[in-house]
Amino acid sequence: MSEAVIESFSPLAERLANALGTRAVITEADAREKYLVEERGLFRGEAAIVIVPETAADLAKAVAICAEEGVGMVPQGGNTGLVGGSVTSGREVLVSFEKMNRIREVDATNFTITVEAGAILADVQAAAAAQDCFFPLSLGAEGSCTIGGNIASNAGGISVLKYGNARDLTLGLEVVLPDGQIWDGMRPLYKDNSGYSLKNLFIGSEGSLGFVTAAVLKLYPRRRQIQTAYCALATVESALELLALARRRSGDQVTAFELMSEFSLSIVCAHADGQRPSAEVHPWYALIELSTSRDGDDLRATFEALLEEAFESGLISDAVVAETIDQAQRLWRLREGIPEAQKRAGGSIKHDISVPVSAIPRFIAEASQAVEAYMPGIHVCAFGHVGDGNVHYNLTQPDGMAKEAFLEHWEAVNDIVHPIAMAMNGSISAEHGIGLLKAQEIDRYRSKSEQALMRTIKRALDPRSIMNPGKTVAIEGKAAG
Amino acid sequence: MSEAVIESFSPLAERLANALGTRAVITEADAREKYLVEERGLFRGEAAIVIVPETAADLAKAVAICAEEGVGMVPQGGNTGLVGGSVTSGREVLVSFEKMNRIREVDATNFTITVEAGAILADVQAAAAAQDCFFPLSLGAEGSCTIGGNIASNAGGISVLKYGNARDLTLGLEVVLPDGQIWDGMRPLYKDNSGYSLKNLFIGSEGSLGFVTAAVLKLYPRRRQIQTAYCALATVESALELLALARRRSGDQVTAFELMSEFSLSIVCAHADGQRPSAEVHPWYALIELSTSRDGDDLRATFEALLEEAFESGLISDAVVAETIDQAQRLWRLREGIPEAQKRAGGSIKHDISVPVSAIPRFIAEASQAVEAYMPGIHVCAFGHVGDGNVHYNLTQPDGMAKEAFLEHWEAVNDIVHPIAMAMNGSISAEHGIGLLKAQEIDRYRSKSEQALMRTIKRALDPRSIMNPGKTVAIEGKAAG
Repeated sequence: MSEAVIESFSPLAERLANALGTRAVITEADAREKYLVEERGLFRGEAAIVIVPETAADLAKAVAICAEEGVGMVPQGGNTGLVGGSVTSGREVLVSFEKMNRIREVDATNFTITVEAGAILADVQAAAAAQDCFFPLSLGAEGSCTIGGNIASNAGGISVLKYGNARDLTLGLEVVLPDGQIWDGMRPLYKDNSGYSLKNLFIGSEGSLGFVTAAVLKLYPRRRQIQTAYCALATVESALELLALARRRSGDQVTAFELMSEFSLSIVCAHADGQRPSAEVHPWYALIELSTSRDGDDLRATFEALLEEAFESGLISDAVVAETIDQAQRLWRLREGIPEAQKRAGGSIKHDISVPVSAIPRFIAEASQAVEAYMPGIHVCAFGHVGDGNVHYNLTQPDGMAKEAFLEHWEAVNDIVHPIAMAMNGSISAEHGIGLLKAQEIDRYRSKSEQALMRTIKRALDPRSIMNPGKTVAIEGKAAG
Repeated sequence: MSEAVIESFSPLAERLANALGTRAVITEADAREKYLVEERGLFRGEAAIVIVPETAADLAKAVAICAEEGVGMVPQGGNTGLVGGSVTSGREVLVSFEKMNRIREVDATNFTITVEAGAILADVQAAAAAQDCFFPLSLGAEGSCTIGGNIASNAGGISVLKYGNARDLTLGLEVVLPDGQIWDGMRPLYKDNSGYSLKNLFIGSEGSLGFVTAAVLKLYPRRRQIQTAYCALATVESALELLALARRRSGDQVTAFELMSEFSLSIVCAHADGQRPSAEVHPWYALIELSTSRDGDDLRATFEALLEEAFESGLISDAVVAETIDQAQRLWRLREGIPEAQKRAGGSIKHDISVPVSAIPRFIAEASQAVEAYMPGIHVCAFGHVGDGNVHYNLTQPDGMAKEAFLEHWEAVNDIVHPIAMAMNGSISAEHGIGLLKAQEIDRYRSKSEQALMRTIKRALDPRSIMNPGKTVAIEGKAAG
């Protein structure tokens, strides 16, 4: 940013400092830096002002001031998003929630926890566990991502099959609205039919309709048995049959069901400390977790019986049930190391699609045929949460190709893969959101009525387009994003 | 309705008949009658025109015509709602979904069912069961209520504790919008973060933003063990401790947890074929259902062990576990017969409140003290889904009082009970909705920002206020409702 542009923000910085206190307004270049860098280097933010409010009331004051001045605002939680949802363009004020991170209350009878938006996901999990409860949202970034970001992006992760997305775990919300009012929807209720579901409008809207400042979240009884198994499979179809069998035989206690292709397993073992549980090589692998809040050890017997049945009926060709927590962690490493292994294996073109679970085999077959026809030798690194229909259908460069040359094909490959998912009634953004990355592309896949509805809502709630402008819904004629 | 008013609708009836066919437009008084009566006699609808479209496209044509003419429309499913949500004022066209009742598809691998809005809930349950699946939504009116009505009112019922409301069970929707466009959101996806959650705006909006014409619903594996028990308790606090214990000990397989006061049990036994499972009389009773899709009979052992633990620690003073399906049905009769028994026991003033589960004992104590102070001798007939915080806090007339005299106190009693729930962060409409019954009252309990948000959304999506006018959100200056 030029000094002149930064200078032009000085009067606003002064107004904000008067309202919130000088400690809450950061304008020094060094201090701003950490909010502007993005780990992957895919985006680089620019912002002359970063604010770090300590309360919803302070944030509301700042929003009212920015609304008056017509300046946009971009919310940032743990800055771990994958679609640039918290990246500033240089024209907006960046709002960090790092000082609004308190866990206010655990109610173990109501099975709820009340937290501020900046609370770290892992801290929420720990606070629940301390009261013999379980908060099921779990994803790779849980050590640094925040609940506010999870809610704004309707985060998914590995437990969606059983417990749903962040949306399903959110009972109540507090939101600072685009006019600087605070909406208090912090009702810790499992049933409330008293009008439009306002909270669901804000969840998943990436801050583009208002900024979440606090939430009441749903808890479950703490899990007392967790069993993890690794299975080898000949086909994706077998994986789906195994999933349905596991759900039925276990009393629907399948809490994770992750698929991995042989290519993804091979790069984890080559580049990311993965250890093959068995020397045998197969086209596909599934990582399955069963868990329950019951005491005892009957879950292991259930698991072994269902795997035996799967083996006998030819669904699986190999299986390992973890004997110890350490062994379970090593099995999980095979799945969790994939993103890191991909980086080390060269360039990756990524997709975050979902289709009906029953359409996954057809999706993988059709997409793989199409991308291999487009670029012979391309490696399909498909993995993910097949239990909920969400495949990270990633592609690694052909052997010997340069990373930069490969990445130039990003959009062209998206244009091959995304229509295949959409033709199966799927989504091109299953769990990562739209952000900046897909704000333009998504419109092509929305029907006219859907585009119109989204814009009507954005214009009605945020007529000046100051809340995270340019994200989720691109409004024409605005110099936003 | 006067003949002159009916006559004034003739040109509209003709336009609709030209567009949809004469069979789809009902104007004869006898044929209209069944859509206008309400079983309880609390409301009486008036409508010169009833339409029975067979497809979403036909309904869309009708909506476009009514939008042009500025005439409101009221959707009607099974006409079983409890808040007058499908009652017409005489100024609107009534839309019946009875001819849009097909079950289109069961996908047992994706665990989804695709249905039209007019499908009867019990038929959806049966279609799921035929494919070894389970659709958990269950409520008293399931033999005649429709999925469209369930979604429009975000129906609750007895399975919310484990499976959530209609909202949580709805993956995709098709909606006819206020301008006569059709929004196709029929995505059978468990994960889809591609913009604002439009479906959640329509779910629970009582048709006031658009009419649901079809839906994709979530299924679960079919249940293979269902165990039901009846427990006697000294206090409501004990019921909550028992619930938490049951959730933890059963592996969270508690699928229903209903509370009944001794008064409600006594009237079921006096007036509605209830049979006491045990001669002992206690202040409170809980009806508990555990169920699982696992084969075997381990659930009964789990149940007996947890009841023994509850007995030994003094939480319960008596318990009966049903030995046969017939016995389980007799236990359920004690709960399901309450509404009928209330009718026979005289006048009832009803509430559909929810509070945090942990606040239920305090709510019942405070509300009961307040209403008894207001009217000595009033009978508290509290019962309901305490597992999800929803108590039907109903009141029966004092002995010897006339029904009509008692019912004149309806609003005064609401004004005592509702503020107590709201002060506990509760809701005055937990599962029945707003409809006509609470459209005026609810605004008093909404904050300014909440009122403004609801009206902004209604005006933005339905600027002419033709979709179920006067329901959910009362718009001033409109002769609606």
